[in-house]
Amino acid sequence: MAEEKTIAFVLYPGLTVLDLVGPLQVLTDVPGYRTVVVAERLDTWETDTSLRVTASHTFAEVPDPSVVIVPGGGAPTLRALADETLIGYLRDVGGRAEVVGSVCTGSLVLGAADLLKGRQATTHWSMLDRLTAFDATPVRKRWVEDGPVITAAGVSAGIDMALHLLTRLAGADYARLAQYILEYDPEPPLGRLDWTKAPHDFFAPFVEQWLQEALGDHPDLHTRLAGPR
Amino acid sequence: MAEEKTIAFVLYPGLTVLDLVGPLQVLTDVPGYRTVVVAERLDTWETDTSLRVTASHTFAEVPDPSVVIVPGGGAPTLRALADETLIGYLRDVGGRAEVVGSVCTGSLVLGAADLLKGRQATTHWSMLDRLTAFDATPVRKRWVEDGPVITAAGVSAGIDMALHLLTRLAGADYARLAQYILEYDPEPPLGRLDWTKAPHDFFAPFVEQWLQEALGDHPDLHTRLAGPR
Repeated sequence: MAEEKTIAFVLYPGLTVLDLVGPLQVLTDVPGYRTVVVAERLDTWETDTSLRVTASHTFAEVPDPSVVIVPGGGAPTLRALADETLIGYLRDVGGRAEVVGSVCTGSLVLGAADLLKGRQATTHWSMLDRLTAFDATPVRKRWVEDGPVITAAGVSAGIDMALHLLTRLAGADYARLAQYILEYDPEPPLGRLDWTKAPHDFFAPFVEQWLQEALGDHPDLHTRLAGPR
Repeated sequence: MAEEKTIAFVLYPGLTVLDLVGPLQVLTDVPGYRTVVVAERLDTWETDTSLRVTASHTFAEVPDPSVVIVPGGGAPTLRALADETLIGYLRDVGGRAEVVGSVCTGSLVLGAADLLKGRQATTHWSMLDRLTAFDATPVRKRWVEDGPVITAAGVSAGIDMALHLLTRLAGADYARLAQYILEYDPEPPLGRLDWTKAPHDFFAPFVEQWLQEALGDHPDLHTRLAGPR
């Protein structure tokens, strides 16, 4: 029997919990893989909702994941860009993993770990242009694959990206079975989104505020990421 | 200023975490509402993934939610049908709440609390017919509204139901803004599901096994729910 591989989702305080849970649900029970949630410590942490969450393993306990995925969020995710332990873990395992993935602004965390250099990538639409700060080429797609790196757009895009990844890891029949089990046949009650009307002006001040709040004490990162694009 | 109302998501051990987190993410930061996660105790509990979760409030701390929503899952959810504390909480608050909701098999929990009697309702496709055990009329839709009761189909359907509910609570403009923020513009990589090919035969033995595992010691509930339909 082949050795079991590991899919590791990275947890940190304050993240957007659906960024984590969407793909985590899709990528749990993948044949040949165990799926874990890794963090610096097994503390119980706040999310951007009232749910609190706890990892299953520490970074030290999962030194060689085959797949590592970083969820995103607002100011807490930008704060993670300056978290030396988390970034150090990603630098270490990211170079050896078969798949390095992210959801939403989690791609900026990959960027801070130098994992996006010269690659095409995506992120939440409100911060797409910021990817250039990490020498990545921003691409406006639901998810973007470039070599071992797969990045998803905002929040719920992580579900689509994970189903695509499940197809790669376990085949289309298995991925379709998972899609039935999760009854993932979306019917957004207000229909599709018209991206020519995306609320960029509404969102821009929040992004600047998050950058100031999270990286005000890290002028190098702040300078790379802040300001109008 | 009007008194703030409460949206309460019910937590119990072993639930399907996306059933909870999808609608929780959508229904966080609703104008005029605080959103909490309630449970019997503030223990850290397992989910059906490797993520562990903790509520923000006990049942006793949230005696009058305006909206109460019950997520679903497999055997642990069926076990919750016989959890007198949880069912007692739902019986108590469910009669007074403006909205009583569920995701996936969470509707069976509502049924066990006598909240579905004479109502139309839905649940995960694999257990739809079991709703008759609680005098509900099964309806095969993404979500079903009947008076104060709103039930969603399996797992990811909770996101669509929650966006519909957000439209009711905060208006279509606000719900659309949330949809942009969550970038909920799905592109399932394998396309839509063909429900004439749903894996009923694959799933049926799991359902019987869950019922036996969860309700073997509760012959009344087991008899009502088990067996071929």
